[in-house]
Amino acid sequence: MTVETAKASLAALQAKQAAYGHALALINYDGSTTAPKGTAANRAQTMSILSAENYRLATGEETVELLEFLDANRSELSDKEVRSVELLLKGIRQLKKIPMDQYIQLQKLLVESDHAWHVAKENNDWDSYRPYLEKVFDFHKRIAAWVEPEKDPYDYWLNEFEEGLTKERCDEFFATLRSRIVPLLDAVMAAPAHNRDMLTGHFPADKQEELAYWLMKTIGLDLEHVGLATTEHPFTTSLGSHFDERITTRYDESDLGFSLFAVIHEGGHALYDTGSADDLAYTALDGGVSMGVHESQSRFYENILGRSKAFCSILLPKLQELFPQQMEGYTVEDLYRAVNCVRPSLIRIQADELSYALHIMIRYEMEKRYFAGELAVADFPATWNALYKEYLGIDVPSDSEGVLQDSHWSFGAIGYFPSYALGSAYGAQFLRKMGESVDVAGCIAKGDFGPINSWNKEHIWSHGCLLKPTELFEKATEEKFDPNIFCDYLEAKFSELYNL
Amino acid sequence: MTVETAKASLAALQAKQAAYGHALALINYDGSTTAPKGTAANRAQTMSILSAENYRLATGEETVELLEFLDANRSELSDKEVRSVELLLKGIRQLKKIPMDQYIQLQKLLVESDHAWHVAKENNDWDSYRPYLEKVFDFHKRIAAWVEPEKDPYDYWLNEFEEGLTKERCDEFFATLRSRIVPLLDAVMAAPAHNRDMLTGHFPADKQEELAYWLMKTIGLDLEHVGLATTEHPFTTSLGSHFDERITTRYDESDLGFSLFAVIHEGGHALYDTGSADDLAYTALDGGVSMGVHESQSRFYENILGRSKAFCSILLPKLQELFPQQMEGYTVEDLYRAVNCVRPSLIRIQADELSYALHIMIRYEMEKRYFAGELAVADFPATWNALYKEYLGIDVPSDSEGVLQDSHWSFGAIGYFPSYALGSAYGAQFLRKMGESVDVAGCIAKGDFGPINSWNKEHIWSHGCLLKPTELFEKATEEKFDPNIFCDYLEAKFSELYNL
Repeated sequence: MTVETAKASLAALQAKQAAYGHALALINYDGSTTAPKGTAANRAQTMSILSAENYRLATGEETVELLEFLDANRSELSDKEVRSVELLLKGIRQLKKIPMDQYIQLQKLLVESDHAWHVAKENNDWDSYRPYLEKVFDFHKRIAAWVEPEKDPYDYWLNEFEEGLTKERCDEFFATLRSRIVPLLDAVMAAPAHNRDMLTGHFPADKQEELAYWLMKTIGLDLEHVGLATTEHPFTTSLGSHFDERITTRYDESDLGFSLFAVIHEGGHALYDTGSADDLAYTALDGGVSMGVHESQSRFYENILGRSKAFCSILLPKLQELFPQQMEGYTVEDLYRAVNCVRPSLIRIQADELSYALHIMIRYEMEKRYFAGELAVADFPATWNALYKEYLGIDVPSDSEGVLQDSHWSFGAIGYFPSYALGSAYGAQFLRKMGESVDVAGCIAKGDFGPINSWNKEHIWSHGCLLKPTELFEKATEEKFDPNIFCDYLEAKFSELYNL
Repeated sequence: MTVETAKASLAALQAKQAAYGHALALINYDGSTTAPKGTAANRAQTMSILSAENYRLATGEETVELLEFLDANRSELSDKEVRSVELLLKGIRQLKKIPMDQYIQLQKLLVESDHAWHVAKENNDWDSYRPYLEKVFDFHKRIAAWVEPEKDPYDYWLNEFEEGLTKERCDEFFATLRSRIVPLLDAVMAAPAHNRDMLTGHFPADKQEELAYWLMKTIGLDLEHVGLATTEHPFTTSLGSHFDERITTRYDESDLGFSLFAVIHEGGHALYDTGSADDLAYTALDGGVSMGVHESQSRFYENILGRSKAFCSILLPKLQELFPQQMEGYTVEDLYRAVNCVRPSLIRIQADELSYALHIMIRYEMEKRYFAGELAVADFPATWNALYKEYLGIDVPSDSEGVLQDSHWSFGAIGYFPSYALGSAYGAQFLRKMGESVDVAGCIAKGDFGPINSWNKEHIWSHGCLLKPTELFEKATEEKFDPNIFCDYLEAKFSELYNL
């Protein structure tokens, strides 16, 4: 093996992994979008086989030899190759510690469990879902023990979604947020209430779909490479490379806000993925580097841009064109208040920007207690409901609107939720930095996302996974992460909105 | 290797092949249904890699050894295992003669070519598609030469879609059809014309979709395992096994007949596939045995059942419910005449049952001439148009409605078209036999497809690929194939319809 042939083999290996990734992601996507209901077992069968092939490819002797050879010859590799080898070796060292039959069992379980979640949510039937979720959580505990037995299992999973994240850092981060958001929220709740009546009523799905495509175009997505579909729970997925990206939404005909912000949120994910430098395609470096940075982009577009007054000024005319009767007589200021109406509520993805973090803290708290052995999956519904009462002051009327509302746990994204809050906080700091060179509000008001997207592409998207999350963040902002900047942003925005 | 371990390996091999089949079919399906337009190259990249993996799996030394060992121990295998080994060995012997790089190139070409066809059809742009089609045809010529150099290349491809079919048999078959259909068609054209006005006008897509689901349920499809989507060109595909089947249609809002019969046609394919005995799933024996038998089922449901008077008697009330204004005042007899209105036309899949075979003969003629070296792909449009004038007496106004109308060649189905005519003829003979034990018209009139489907399941569907097409046909009908039975059926039906 020469370094040159090894480099070629590295490229071929990554291309193969991308191909398996394409197939597996598409089978999942199909399951959520158009597959007939009785086909989950068939998908599980195929996914367990393809995952096994992918596992063999990723952890086979030949691959390990190749990567170790390249690792030993780092000086002759490009920066990209060095980082690819590093990430792949890290993946292998993890995977090799998971017994193969268990790994395959898990892939199959996740498909079945995701299906069970869909059915359970639809039928408000926690009991049918519980056995699956118990297995999923139990698997995650065992995986952490296999891979890093010396580490706290929850720290292991937090770090999987955001390199460097720990319970300790989360506790600190959430403490800062709580100390500043709770009083702010109290003040807002004491102020005269706003309402979001203009967003409720009847909004036909076909018109909402038209709006969705307008939003996608407006925020700068390339519709030749980004598709839109409908699913119960909105998500974004890359198929094989950033050249084929899919986002999904759901049209709630009684609530215009749901799909509106789901599309911008998922659109932010898709902008990040499709913004990878093209020469990263079909390598381990393609797409977003961590879920924290990913959510920083999705929530940046959804809230910081999408819920800004400037955006309301271009959104209202479009809404008036699509829904002339419902929008009659409303002003930009009305829309701005409606999309920022603060009201502690049941559903995370419909939460306002201010109380959102409290939804995350509830999930964080539950995951933390589970891994500490203080909470069993069987007690999730009761704990969920108690925490919603405690943090947000509301009663949960059904599991479908409670513990069954999110899909994440069903497909194994345990330890993911804190990324949302972290991402929100990253975003405010990105905004402050971007503002030094870009007239953000001015661009939005003109409907020209070009300069905003260029900044993001240069500082965030194009790097793919080349830089570690912290490195990326600090290079882009030229400072350390400080959640107080996010709190400052919230204070300024909501004090103005509620005349505090 | 013992026979027992070899049997287990055979099952595992077939399950793996089904998994690759699932992934590849789904990527294709996605490309035709929901993928954004700019993603064809990305799909081609993934498909070329997965096809290569599949090729290695299918033709690897280990696989060959396994199959040859099992073949040498046939006496200890079940009938199913014997047939699986036979089919797999046949496949390997073929594949091994195709150089692997060429095989992979072909898979990639077919994805690109199918994409080019979509674009070309939409833009009526033959020139952009021609280079792809030339390569596809050229590949097929070379494959035939690699695999069976001693055989006529067109005979090779006819046999691929219908075991035992040759140019000689096709020539004979089409000569019989021509000798009886042409005079019948002349007589019909000389009789007072019917019209299909009740099927034209404005029929909203959402109502047509409702109709499509009603049709699927009525003919007995299990909607838990059979999905419906829309594509430019309707098709049916199995994903991994007969437990997940997809059919597609297209809603022409100005013509109710298009999607109506497309759904029944594709539904017939799906009934056949999903009717395989469950223990054939994840083996080489799952699904239909040949394209001729496949088309016998699709065209049986579309024409023999779907265009019968009995079916019109249950269809009309449904149409009146969905399209009350358009259907006002029409009778069952009117509908029966409208769906059987004979009128030589441009588009094969919209052709009436009588002139349909002439569309097939045109395609057969062109393929035959191509392989005989008498026709170049570059001359396809001119030849197409000349043959439509000669056979059907009509002028082709554009390539989109002419040589670009069908997708088959674009994805490598060359030699497929004769199966449609053959299938139509098989169907008439199945009907005659079925009529001995089932009151076909009576069942349809009650909307009860149960006894009809049971007959088909017992005699055709459940066998999957266990029996060879001829064997299957002769066991089911207890006689030899005779195209005159089809001609008798057409004569009786259209003489009555047109008072000849």
